[in-house]
Amino acid sequence: MSRLILFAFGLALLAVSAVAGAATASKPSAPKPIAIVIHGGAGVMPASEMTAEREAAYREGLNAALDAGYAVLNGGGTSLDAVTAAVKLMEDNPLFNAGKGAVLTHKGEAELDASIMEGKSLRAGAIAGVSHVKNPIELARLVMEKSPHVMLIGAGAEEFALEQGVTLMPSSYFVTPRRQEQLQRAIEKENKEKSPGAGTVGAVALDRDGNLAAATSTGGMTNKRHGRVGDSPIIGAGTYANNASCAVSATGYGEYFIRSVVAHDICALVEYKKMPLDAAVKEVIHNKLPKLGGDGGVIAIDARGHTALDFSSEGMFRAQHRSDGKREVMIYRDR
Amino acid sequence: MSRLILFAFGLALLAVSAVAGAATASKPSAPKPIAIVIHGGAGVMPASEMTAEREAAYREGLNAALDAGYAVLNGGGTSLDAVTAAVKLMEDNPLFNAGKGAVLTHKGEAELDASIMEGKSLRAGAIAGVSHVKNPIELARLVMEKSPHVMLIGAGAEEFALEQGVTLMPSSYFVTPRRQEQLQRAIEKENKEKSPGAGTVGAVALDRDGNLAAATSTGGMTNKRHGRVGDSPIIGAGTYANNASCAVSATGYGEYFIRSVVAHDICALVEYKKMPLDAAVKEVIHNKLPKLGGDGGVIAIDARGHTALDFSSEGMFRAQHRSDGKREVMIYRDR
Repeated sequence: MSRLILFAFGLALLAVSAVAGAATASKPSAPKPIAIVIHGGAGVMPASEMTAEREAAYREGLNAALDAGYAVLNGGGTSLDAVTAAVKLMEDNPLFNAGKGAVLTHKGEAELDASIMEGKSLRAGAIAGVSHVKNPIELARLVMEKSPHVMLIGAGAEEFALEQGVTLMPSSYFVTPRRQEQLQRAIEKENKEKSPGAGTVGAVALDRDGNLAAATSTGGMTNKRHGRVGDSPIIGAGTYANNASCAVSATGYGEYFIRSVVAHDICALVEYKKMPLDAAVKEVIHNKLPKLGGDGGVIAIDARGHTALDFSSEGMFRAQHRSDGKREVMIYRDR
Repeated sequence: MSRLILFAFGLALLAVSAVAGAATASKPSAPKPIAIVIHGGAGVMPASEMTAEREAAYREGLNAALDAGYAVLNGGGTSLDAVTAAVKLMEDNPLFNAGKGAVLTHKGEAELDASIMEGKSLRAGAIAGVSHVKNPIELARLVMEKSPHVMLIGAGAEEFALEQGVTLMPSSYFVTPRRQEQLQRAIEKENKEKSPGAGTVGAVALDRDGNLAAATSTGGMTNKRHGRVGDSPIIGAGTYANNASCAVSATGYGEYFIRSVVAHDICALVEYKKMPLDAAVKEVIHNKLPKLGGDGGVIAIDARGHTALDFSSEGMFRAQHRSDGKREVMIYRDR
């Protein structure tokens, strides 16, 4: 009997060591995680007003941007290239409030802001108040890579765009009938309605080398005054990436997001207070921002591939694709 | 003998309780600390090139701004009014790189940036790229108090200035012969010389109510390209104030300060990592920033009246006055 027990015990030991050996052996060949998260703004129309056609169009736009970004990562590309590709597609899509189809200022023109940041080097680029740059995120990236500066604004930014051979468009390119109607309604209501960061776009990603990146692009708020800048082009507020903590892109009522330094605050909670990513996002979006009166949402990712997509508005156009198999495209809380 | 000991012990007890009573009684009437710290930029000329006359002029300018700010606090005024008063005087002083006497862009004009923040409410205001506003810090404050926005740039910011009745000046008002010579030298050297935030001005203060405020104003860097924005008008980078942690105004190579989100990072280290204020300042200025290649300095204050003035450059024009009696005006490490 005792021999039987010893034999069984020996078998068990063998089994345990075999499992342990397999785990050890598989570690070097296990692919490192990659992931991309995108958003198309926290300013989603009420579910009751959303038509099936419009919802399908938004989902198609999100899917296309998500796939473009993930393809870059899956092909071994950088997180910087992935977020650029995803945001660029959403800028070209008139449904979103960035690039073509951006919301209009009081004067009826688009004034575009964008920023991008690389988590490995803490390099960053930002532009604000441009009216002729087809893809603001590309210009923000050129500021980062081809100038000694981080932020260029207005006519100076467009002069730099010309030097860099960036595609410029007449201001009419950006204007769509839908945004003209929105502007008209906003003017008639005399801005009494709060206008959240409706349709701002952004992306955060983690690449095979473990590097994070974040990008955000927007037309700002409907009926905004000439020269108003929200959080999107502000490094630390609308966009931040640091391999030591996380990458964040925000969308919401920009003034509150600037005052809360939202993106950097989330990363600081992760790095200094050792909060899990989703808890840090929740703390800022559902506790700190509401105290000021601000609503909106963020997407975030850390260097281990954890992702967080959270918002205090009714919905947020959002999607993610992770190498652990998770892939989803969502608009409201439940779908 | 034992009676004598008992008697002596009784006397000692009485003495202790009297002292304790006095301490308790004095507590309610002990005035709460007030303090102001100012800087006139980290870009100080080498000590070997500084003439006695010029040094005296700088000290006079710092003394005047310090006294103006402290007078506000001492009269029971707010930290917001104190930092505004101190910065405004330095903007009017052609020695400093803000308002009159600001450094010039490549095109030979001044492009001014400023921001202000209140630590109690987290309200903030910022302007960038204005060329005709006599006192940029006043306009930043009006953006905070009289608009729904936090940041206005360029012509839109100047339109708001006109609406608010702010004093506008022709661009020639800001130009001084000294800055024209600096620009000429910078153009001849083709920018090969790193130009730190020479002479940016700022102030942080704590008032009797325990409220913090921070303000920063600058002309940016000599020979900068049209539209370049540094850290000074960026909430979180050049300026940040939060009663929960501290108030900070920065001066240095703006691009690095934006990427490091310097002001908010210092406050995050204080709030989340429980670092003493001076240790948090040291960590960011002497450890984190040099890793990116950036130099400069900051002034900081917390809600208990602790102050920190630190820099990685050769010097920083700086001064502080605290209600504990500390008052100093400094330029280099030792004087």
